[in-house]
Amino acid sequence: MASKLRYLHHPASQPCRSARQFMIENDIPFEDEVVDITTNINETQEFRDKYNPTGQVPILVDGDFIVWENVAIARYVNEKFDCPGHWFGSTLRARARINQFVQWYAYTLRLGGGAFHWTIFAPFIYGPNKDFSAERRKGYHVLYESMGIMERYWLKDRDYLCGDEVSYADLVALHEFVSHHAGKIIPDNVWKKHPRISAWFERLSARAATKAVSEWQYDAIGKVLTGELKVKFTRRTAVLKGTEAYGGHNHGIPHLDEEDDYIARVES
Amino acid sequence: MASKLRYLHHPASQPCRSARQFMIENDIPFEDEVVDITTNINETQEFRDKYNPTGQVPILVDGDFIVWENVAIARYVNEKFDCPGHWFGSTLRARARINQFVQWYAYTLRLGGGAFHWTIFAPFIYGPNKDFSAERRKGYHVLYESMGIMERYWLKDRDYLCGDEVSYADLVALHEFVSHHAGKIIPDNVWKKHPRISAWFERLSARAATKAVSEWQYDAIGKVLTGELKVKFTRRTAVLKGTEAYGGHNHGIPHLDEEDDYIARVES
Repeated sequence: MASKLRYLHHPASQPCRSARQFMIENDIPFEDEVVDITTNINETQEFRDKYNPTGQVPILVDGDFIVWENVAIARYVNEKFDCPGHWFGSTLRARARINQFVQWYAYTLRLGGGAFHWTIFAPFIYGPNKDFSAERRKGYHVLYESMGIMERYWLKDRDYLCGDEVSYADLVALHEFVSHHAGKIIPDNVWKKHPRISAWFERLSARAATKAVSEWQYDAIGKVLTGELKVKFTRRTAVLKGTEAYGGHNHGIPHLDEEDDYIARVES
Repeated sequence: MASKLRYLHHPASQPCRSARQFMIENDIPFEDEVVDITTNINETQEFRDKYNPTGQVPILVDGDFIVWENVAIARYVNEKFDCPGHWFGSTLRARARINQFVQWYAYTLRLGGGAFHWTIFAPFIYGPNKDFSAERRKGYHVLYESMGIMERYWLKDRDYLCGDEVSYADLVALHEFVSHHAGKIIPDNVWKKHPRISAWFERLSARAATKAVSEWQYDAIGKVLTGELKVKFTRRTAVLKGTEAYGGHNHGIPHLDEEDDYIARVES
């Protein structure tokens, strides 16, 4: 290995925390580079050309090679550093189960992150008087439906999502719930209705790496909830892509800014 | 191998076609079982308990083991039958690129499938007089944005999405475009604005396996467009989960049926 890995991330991002925790759990040496996603720095053309055309974090830089998407980053590190087999499965069937989870999660739990984002961050981005009820409603719907499947299927008869040992599937799911927990997004009675998820979340939260990776989130969001912290967002586009209720991804919320008709521009 | 693989799928489904083409390309013996997703057969509790808690296809049954999610199915088959390395990458870097694509695709191109679904199938499911403009708008937005990144990044300087040889990334993306192409979803001038995607799509469409797997889609959707075929949907829930504009996944479109307040039910 010619040079240390560089890890571009932000501690408020669920996928960033998941891959970061994976590297910490496995004692992988890497340099932290926090990208300030409250600005538009990662949405600039320069950033996109240099690192990632989607303008998103996390991003892993390994010399002249760049990988993004948290699951791809973790798989890359897992293979390069020959991490223990439980993370991505030691048998064909264990691998299948983990592969199944990380694909399922992308359009379920990950989009359920909208329940957090549109409650906690959106007022700082778009202003406190905008109505985000449709976005929150969508986020909660996906989140609750995903929790039902986690409770009855993924966590049925086992301590971790894909077996008796922790895997990367647990880390991606965990950090969705870390955000919800820090933001008090899930009401107490909904936690109680999902006793397996509650026990699994406590089990994972007790890990030293979970605490280290989640500290910023609990601290900052705790202060947001008490009103002690006002996050200054200078960006005007969504940071949790794909959770918008009405429009597409990188262009904010069309129903709030109908002047930029992206679809008409492409079709013209 | 004790028994032949069973593959539960429907030819109208993009993910079903992708994994099916993968098995055909690699001469994997399997038994086709078409699941009639125009009914609610795969959404019944019996189906969910037996095969897949999400009620979705494709599903691969290998004796007593079941895998769902198209990417997980293809990875399982790829490993079990030791398929050629180009499908999921022969080097660490090639694998990283493919892993990156299949995760990116899940919340971009896949959700862009809504442009097709809400134009072609939704009127048969919910009735011809309902307004799906918000859903179509969302689908087009995601689709066009994804196409921009495909054109400028994934297909830059190469014939296939992840390198000089075909990979599973190409198959998942291909079948999104097969649906759009069959349904005439993408206007001619938008195809012309994306010459690399157009050339890539022609290149993949020329494969014998693509033709075999896509025949039903072109035939049926061609007849829908001329008015010759009216698809009889007896189900009333969305078949392209995650593409809804307003609500969550498995419960149809809340703004069309506000009586079932799923969120309130979970929180009560």
